[in-house]
Amino acid sequence: MNYRLVLNILGKLITIVGLSMIAPLMWDLGQGEGVVLPFLYSLTITVGIGVMLSIFVKPGGDVRYKEGFTLVALAWLAAAFFGSLPYVFANTFPSFADAFFESMSGFTTTGASVMTDIESNPKAIILWRAITHWLGGLGILVLFIAILSQLGIGAMRIFKAEVPGPTKEKIKPRISETAKIFLLIYTALTITQTGILLLLGISFFDAIVQTFATVATGGFSSRNESIGAFGPAVQWTITVFMFLAGTNFALYYLAILGKKPAVFWQNEEFRLYTYITLAAGGIISVVLWWTGYYESGEETLRTSLFQVVSILTTTGFATVDYDQWPLLTKGIIIMLMFVGGCVGSTGGGLKVGRLLIMSKQTLLELNRAIHPRAYLSLKVNGRTVEQEVLASIFQFFYLYILVFMLAAIYMTGLGIDLITSFSAVAASIGNVGPGLGLVGPAENFAFLPWHAKYVHSLLMLLGRLEIYTILVLLLPGFWRRV
Amino acid sequence: MNYRLVLNILGKLITIVGLSMIAPLMWDLGQGEGVVLPFLYSLTITVGIGVMLSIFVKPGGDVRYKEGFTLVALAWLAAAFFGSLPYVFANTFPSFADAFFESMSGFTTTGASVMTDIESNPKAIILWRAITHWLGGLGILVLFIAILSQLGIGAMRIFKAEVPGPTKEKIKPRISETAKIFLLIYTALTITQTGILLLLGISFFDAIVQTFATVATGGFSSRNESIGAFGPAVQWTITVFMFLAGTNFALYYLAILGKKPAVFWQNEEFRLYTYITLAAGGIISVVLWWTGYYESGEETLRTSLFQVVSILTTTGFATVDYDQWPLLTKGIIIMLMFVGGCVGSTGGGLKVGRLLIMSKQTLLELNRAIHPRAYLSLKVNGRTVEQEVLASIFQFFYLYILVFMLAAIYMTGLGIDLITSFSAVAASIGNVGPGLGLVGPAENFAFLPWHAKYVHSLLMLLGRLEIYTILVLLLPGFWRRV
Repeated sequence: MNYRLVLNILGKLITIVGLSMIAPLMWDLGQGEGVVLPFLYSLTITVGIGVMLSIFVKPGGDVRYKEGFTLVALAWLAAAFFGSLPYVFANTFPSFADAFFESMSGFTTTGASVMTDIESNPKAIILWRAITHWLGGLGILVLFIAILSQLGIGAMRIFKAEVPGPTKEKIKPRISETAKIFLLIYTALTITQTGILLLLGISFFDAIVQTFATVATGGFSSRNESIGAFGPAVQWTITVFMFLAGTNFALYYLAILGKKPAVFWQNEEFRLYTYITLAAGGIISVVLWWTGYYESGEETLRTSLFQVVSILTTTGFATVDYDQWPLLTKGIIIMLMFVGGCVGSTGGGLKVGRLLIMSKQTLLELNRAIHPRAYLSLKVNGRTVEQEVLASIFQFFYLYILVFMLAAIYMTGLGIDLITSFSAVAASIGNVGPGLGLVGPAENFAFLPWHAKYVHSLLMLLGRLEIYTILVLLLPGFWRRV
Repeated sequence: MNYRLVLNILGKLITIVGLSMIAPLMWDLGQGEGVVLPFLYSLTITVGIGVMLSIFVKPGGDVRYKEGFTLVALAWLAAAFFGSLPYVFANTFPSFADAFFESMSGFTTTGASVMTDIESNPKAIILWRAITHWLGGLGILVLFIAILSQLGIGAMRIFKAEVPGPTKEKIKPRISETAKIFLLIYTALTITQTGILLLLGISFFDAIVQTFATVATGGFSSRNESIGAFGPAVQWTITVFMFLAGTNFALYYLAILGKKPAVFWQNEEFRLYTYITLAAGGIISVVLWWTGYYESGEETLRTSLFQVVSILTTTGFATVDYDQWPLLTKGIIIMLMFVGGCVGSTGGGLKVGRLLIMSKQTLLELNRAIHPRAYLSLKVNGRTVEQEVLASIFQFFYLYILVFMLAAIYMTGLGIDLITSFSAVAASIGNVGPGLGLVGPAENFAFLPWHAKYVHSLLMLLGRLEIYTILVLLLPGFWRRV
């Protein structure tokens, strides 16, 4: 293991996290809600440590797979740790476990919160929460790709499964360039959504916070009522942008640079993602309309679609307390938590692309049972999916369900009811945010004991880094000198 | 498709089901509880149709994979249909859906019931329920192997995954002989358990009904209180025999014929099966002891182990209403429902062997990420697991979870609470029997609407025949002429 190199790169990332604290610091200088010093302390410590690491630890050699795995895991852990400092110095939460949970939830773009009254907090703190989302989303899109591009075959083999179809071949081979383009698209989405929200008449602060949480598919709102605090036009806008943020970013690249908007509909994953949205939204609309939950057709459709897109993209915003909805809609919501967004998006969960590949392969396998001598190979977007990639996807699914089950049993061990236990774990590992029951959209994770907050922080990290990255670090063989 | 051959073999199987009705018929001739005529009608119809099919439809040609799939599915459907006739003629249930559900639950060795007061029924009816279990268990062990031995590579490829290790190679290659040996072992277990229960002083009727339900890992008891109606010695005995019935029958064969009792402990699946039993039993014992549910240590240990083995082997007996237990124990019970018994046993669920293979493969894959150039291949019981088998196991897992999720959503659509919905589906597809909530051990499935009874019948069949067998039949390509 090349520790010097890891620490050096880590120092640079920590510095970026620290410098991002300038924004909330400036904000509070204007607002005067008394959190200038907390941000100043946090910024000084974070940038100080970051700069020291990147200056005094001289790098050398390449980032190989061991360094890559270590770096990715440490990057998120360090971001969550240093990102929690403003909460600590501002006394936002009663314990460090809470501050760390909130910070990890931010950087993993989960959006699960231990904050009981958002609006009573200084605006700079709420802004910082939103910034952790934005950085985390960027991290997934850019940092992750950038780091993994330097890794050996070992890690790429796992990562390949995440970037099927266009990204791998058509997009420019230099992954660092791809990363820059992803950053541009991400920024463009951010600016566009902020602009629209401003035009719709909401404040700059509200606009920027909701936007950061939307494009990162995070879910930290500036309001206690989440998006329920805003009007229909804002809700529709956020629905659209959540959907866009849950889309594979490689498609934007292809659509813009190749001047072919048709790439979206040509992409099988995007089609399935759209069908799932429409089907789930349609069923929930009909159920809610049938049972007379909302007065107008528009309200029913808007609320249903908003919630479906919010859960499917693993954003976790809410406009209503869907925990009060009929059972069927809750069953659908639980299922959507597992589905997640598209591969190459900021969304979490299993990812639509993986489910697509597993379902197509299963159908192929059934057909093979009928025609045992026929040569059938799985094609997605017109390209054959390699056996290796296929195997890794099915294994990921098994690991995901296994971790989910074990963590849910841990939760029941705390004496927490089954619905809360299972949905909370599904929401954390899927980076969704709220679940059902005691962690429903109108509730939060504050009541959990301190160790459960760390367990859920770990679950969010496992979900965000797709489990393997973290588990590899836990193998004794990983740390053995070669 | 060679329909003549399928119908001919089916006729023979139906005849066996019909002839089995002689036992309850004779019983009621002695007891005089007024169900002689219902059994006489059922027997006449069933044997009549069975014999006609096997005599008048002349077979020809071989059973190939298409015939095999069709036959296996039709065998269980026909058994469930004809097996429901005694209930229909005796007016045991208010509807045919109920009778069919009970019969399917019997033949799939599930043990889910729509019978609200077991003890108010004629003993012959209760005996028939137990016989359906015994036949179903035999079906899984013998009939299934016997039929699949005649199939082509297509079906065997799927089936191979079920019989890893000893069965495939060491056991006599002639599968029809293996089937006979399995029947002998099954019968020996039945006779031994019945003998012990009689020695413990319970009536012949009670002994035979509990035994049939035990060795088939079914769960239909003769008592409303299930095994709670009997004393500690009976409960311990049944615990041991459930455990034995959930063990791979190939191990008995190897142990007896090879005179090597060590084969049990040499078998990785059996070891894991034992560890899971002890770990889950241990944790539940400690929790129940800690919370003071039972007075003595013996009662705590007995009740915990009984319930763990009952759920793990997918028998579904109960000695207490475990739905009243602490949440942690319920979490563990839900997980055990998915695990199931050993491959090559009468148990249902995913099977311990599959989980073993998936877990070992996942660990291997993680190690491969560290040593990308190392050649690592998965070995279980000292033999390399083929890629094809591996792939089919992971695919089965995906399909199992997918069907589970979709069916659970259907259940929530009926307005049934989430815990009941999810646990009922897990219990049906896992061939366990009771779940939690409204389908808990002290409740039953009678309250479900008629269509839900058919859906659960289908789920039990899907679980029993490991999904693929049924799904293949639903593909249009299956019915196309070559």
